[in-house]
Amino acid sequence: MEAATKSAVPVVSFDTSPDRYRHWKLTFDGPIATLSMDVQEDAALTPDYKLKLNSYDLGVDFELADAVQRIRFEHPEAHAVVITSLKERVFCAGANIFMLRGSTHAWKVNFCKFTNETRLAIEDASQHSGIKFLAALNGITAGGGYELALACDEIFLVDDGNSAVSLPETPLLGVLPGTGGLTRVVDKRKVRRDLADVFATVAEGIKGKRAVEWGLVDAVYPTSQFKQRVAERARELASRSDRPASGRGITLTPLKPKVTDSSVTYSAVDLQIDRDKRVATLTVTAPEDPQPSTPDAIVAAGDRYWPLRAFRELDDALLRLRLNEPLIGTIVLKTHGDPEAVLAVDEMLLAHQDHWLVREIVHLMKRTLKRLDLTARSFFALIEPGSCFAGSLFELALAADRSYMLDNPDQENTISLSGMNGGPLRMSNGLTRLETRFLADPKRPADLLAHDGPFDAEEALEAGLVSFAPDELDWDDEVRLAIESRAALSPDALTGMEANLRFAGPETMETKIFGRLSAWQNWIFIRPNAVGDKGALTAYGSQSRPEFDFKRT
Amino acid sequence: MEAATKSAVPVVSFDTSPDRYRHWKLTFDGPIATLSMDVQEDAALTPDYKLKLNSYDLGVDFELADAVQRIRFEHPEAHAVVITSLKERVFCAGANIFMLRGSTHAWKVNFCKFTNETRLAIEDASQHSGIKFLAALNGITAGGGYELALACDEIFLVDDGNSAVSLPETPLLGVLPGTGGLTRVVDKRKVRRDLADVFATVAEGIKGKRAVEWGLVDAVYPTSQFKQRVAERARELASRSDRPASGRGITLTPLKPKVTDSSVTYSAVDLQIDRDKRVATLTVTAPEDPQPSTPDAIVAAGDRYWPLRAFRELDDALLRLRLNEPLIGTIVLKTHGDPEAVLAVDEMLLAHQDHWLVREIVHLMKRTLKRLDLTARSFFALIEPGSCFAGSLFELALAADRSYMLDNPDQENTISLSGMNGGPLRMSNGLTRLETRFLADPKRPADLLAHDGPFDAEEALEAGLVSFAPDELDWDDEVRLAIESRAALSPDALTGMEANLRFAGPETMETKIFGRLSAWQNWIFIRPNAVGDKGALTAYGSQSRPEFDFKRT
Repeated sequence: MEAATKSAVPVVSFDTSPDRYRHWKLTFDGPIATLSMDVQEDAALTPDYKLKLNSYDLGVDFELADAVQRIRFEHPEAHAVVITSLKERVFCAGANIFMLRGSTHAWKVNFCKFTNETRLAIEDASQHSGIKFLAALNGITAGGGYELALACDEIFLVDDGNSAVSLPETPLLGVLPGTGGLTRVVDKRKVRRDLADVFATVAEGIKGKRAVEWGLVDAVYPTSQFKQRVAERARELASRSDRPASGRGITLTPLKPKVTDSSVTYSAVDLQIDRDKRVATLTVTAPEDPQPSTPDAIVAAGDRYWPLRAFRELDDALLRLRLNEPLIGTIVLKTHGDPEAVLAVDEMLLAHQDHWLVREIVHLMKRTLKRLDLTARSFFALIEPGSCFAGSLFELALAADRSYMLDNPDQENTISLSGMNGGPLRMSNGLTRLETRFLADPKRPADLLAHDGPFDAEEALEAGLVSFAPDELDWDDEVRLAIESRAALSPDALTGMEANLRFAGPETMETKIFGRLSAWQNWIFIRPNAVGDKGALTAYGSQSRPEFDFKRT
Repeated sequence: MEAATKSAVPVVSFDTSPDRYRHWKLTFDGPIATLSMDVQEDAALTPDYKLKLNSYDLGVDFELADAVQRIRFEHPEAHAVVITSLKERVFCAGANIFMLRGSTHAWKVNFCKFTNETRLAIEDASQHSGIKFLAALNGITAGGGYELALACDEIFLVDDGNSAVSLPETPLLGVLPGTGGLTRVVDKRKVRRDLADVFATVAEGIKGKRAVEWGLVDAVYPTSQFKQRVAERARELASRSDRPASGRGITLTPLKPKVTDSSVTYSAVDLQIDRDKRVATLTVTAPEDPQPSTPDAIVAAGDRYWPLRAFRELDDALLRLRLNEPLIGTIVLKTHGDPEAVLAVDEMLLAHQDHWLVREIVHLMKRTLKRLDLTARSFFALIEPGSCFAGSLFELALAADRSYMLDNPDQENTISLSGMNGGPLRMSNGLTRLETRFLADPKRPADLLAHDGPFDAEEALEAGLVSFAPDELDWDDEVRLAIESRAALSPDALTGMEANLRFAGPETMETKIFGRLSAWQNWIFIRPNAVGDKGALTAYGSQSRPEFDFKRT
């Protein structure tokens, strides 16, 4: 693992569960789940900093992401979630500054990206899973703490004369509220830009009635009424859900991959790492056993059901690549197995999208593919005989920066589309990957989805579904050269290029967060005014004041 | 002026005209204007680099911007523009690499911003002024040269076995095609993202039939046919224009401001610079003399007509602030004069929007206000007795990050809206500034535009049209403190914050270029892989190969 901090290497475990949470308490009361932040100061990822005042590092956010996931899968009876804190007069002080100060640039960027994805997972659950989120801010709420609140459907703030919401990054740290803060304030909550400007430059934040008037929170209540009002509102929010009123969920068991120095092997996903070439190969295998054919059988199969299992594993592999393998610049995407088995699963998922668990599985697949879109590595899909780039697995090829398909008349090699390519797995820009690919020809996605049967290499190339279709004489050289020359390019230029080419078409709040806000934050994160010897992030918490080079760009 | 290059200080003249162009020839033949690039190698802004192969620096782009402006105002009979080159087998090699390599970060960023604005001005003329642009690529077209072509409505490329279009920034320089290149390829021309990925990583580019198939150009013709095909197509494009078939244009005469060490004074605009406080005051004065009341009288008044004069001066002042005053972080916007005089001009402009010159004036006002939106400085509008924040000048207050309006019952102090706030002066995001301000309340802009007469401070505050309305007891302290505390914040954090708060709502190709592409480019521009001792931009043209830190973020 890359050194997260300049002085120490943390060991991050992606594998957690409520009984092992160190920073959150997850409790259930009928349709209401309560997720309470109670960060343990001494349980940071490295001993370099203390997680005071419910400030957080990536370890805290992994637990939050896990909790949101488990509420969706394990507790279908949970219809509303209250996010609050167990600390007196403190909701959350935001990302831990000393962690940020001590981190490498790459760690800061990946930390911010993951926390953004977690916030978006909350909004995804609200929009698609019938789970509403109420932020119950029982005390001071600063920076990333307020960004977490912004991800909730509603924000209640205690009116105790002291508790305020704030985005103090600009005045105190010389950086941005980069976990969606600025975007959510003006785009989601539609706070007036001049008021947002004042809010984001006032370190102490805004409290009480003014916070409501400016649209920063939805309501404030005195301490004496706060808990009751939160409980009442949570019940109202829960009452609107379309989730099952009762019935058991499924358990997300640990993935337990086999890990060696150069590989991570799961049940349906395999990751091979070649650090010398700076290339990894990520292979997804189609289902090999019979798959459930009714929703009840899916519930019974639980997390052994292939699409859930394969995409959870894929998600885990992507996170490992991001955090543990910074030198792997190019990822070759492969699939292996029977395309018909994948298409049969797709058919099942499409037929039962209104079942709560099927719905959750499809949205998890969608979020995993978004995670891939947002991973700052080059992806090349290789479509070879024996592969199964069909339906939902063909999304991997569509998500790739390029795809190469072997055209050899002597060996069967096809791709297929399914209804899963037509809507359920939309990108952050709100379009399907087919729509994004064929912006110039908006009718083509429907035509291609109506195509009967698989496409061979010639047909796929003609249809524009793959980038190149070399024959067997050219294949080895062409693919090898493409990968080698990719791995030789400037990694920064590639990151910027891919961030621009992958998201053609409309922008959404989500793409604005990653495309605009994060890009500016990344820029600021390497400017001396933030991270130089006398920068604001460096000076924070010390006796010295930051010294700025006041030149504007 | 800030040192543009690390070793020398260029003297940039904003004031140019066709008879003084060093790098372009502008000729007219009936409805066709031809703008031919013929860059003089030895006429760079500094002697540090040679402008070989029609490569360009800011001086070249100033002339291009001037030429596009003059075609619009001085040649209403010009209905199509052919952009080509007088150099054999070379259209344009793009931005000069040695200039980029030697420039400060701020200069690179401002250079890219201005060139982007110039490309957008071409598209604005196409969309709104009935002038179509045909890029006639008579030779190699690389980087910024292709970005210029992308700004045109159509692109013809000579098919001579050698001439190609290319975006070689990523493979050769480790930076991005940042003058809109990546965005225009996938969003404007809707080139498939995997093909765009290949195109932007192949240094030699794409030529001939493949360039047409991929959508990179509209047509290729052999050398023997090229000129004739270009001429034919230009005539076809010209035939669709709604501009006058004949009739004289107006002349844009030099602005000739009075410049001292701390001020720039024009006829209707005054800029006072306080470098110690890092604050400038920019004041726009309302018309003082009677203004023309018919389109013919406007043509006769020419560039003496107040809105054209005032907004040209404002534009010039903004460019001077960007390039010459990097330390001025906060700009106080003021107005002075009779609001009724401004509203009378607005009425005239609105009544005659279908007149070619009035149309041009309104679009110039629009572009100038966009220039302000995109200027990386904090703007505070101060609305005081004697000011004239009415109609089109109230856009200054709406464009500001904040506005302060004195509320003193003893002194008349009002603001007013006009139809100019309701559509003609849209921001880059496609919305009016009122719509952007009131995203949370989409009906309010229409209600406010229907308001009869001016708003006093209390009404303006209540309507949400100003940020604050201190009374005379608080005014001095509140305004002084606001400006002082703004000037003390990290300039980088402010730049990033403002770039995110100013453009709420939808994103367009234009906002994607400035918000996403430029932000990534800025980040890459300070990464060691580009500008470090062994970075690609540093190594270019030398014997040494770049050495990369291959860590991905």
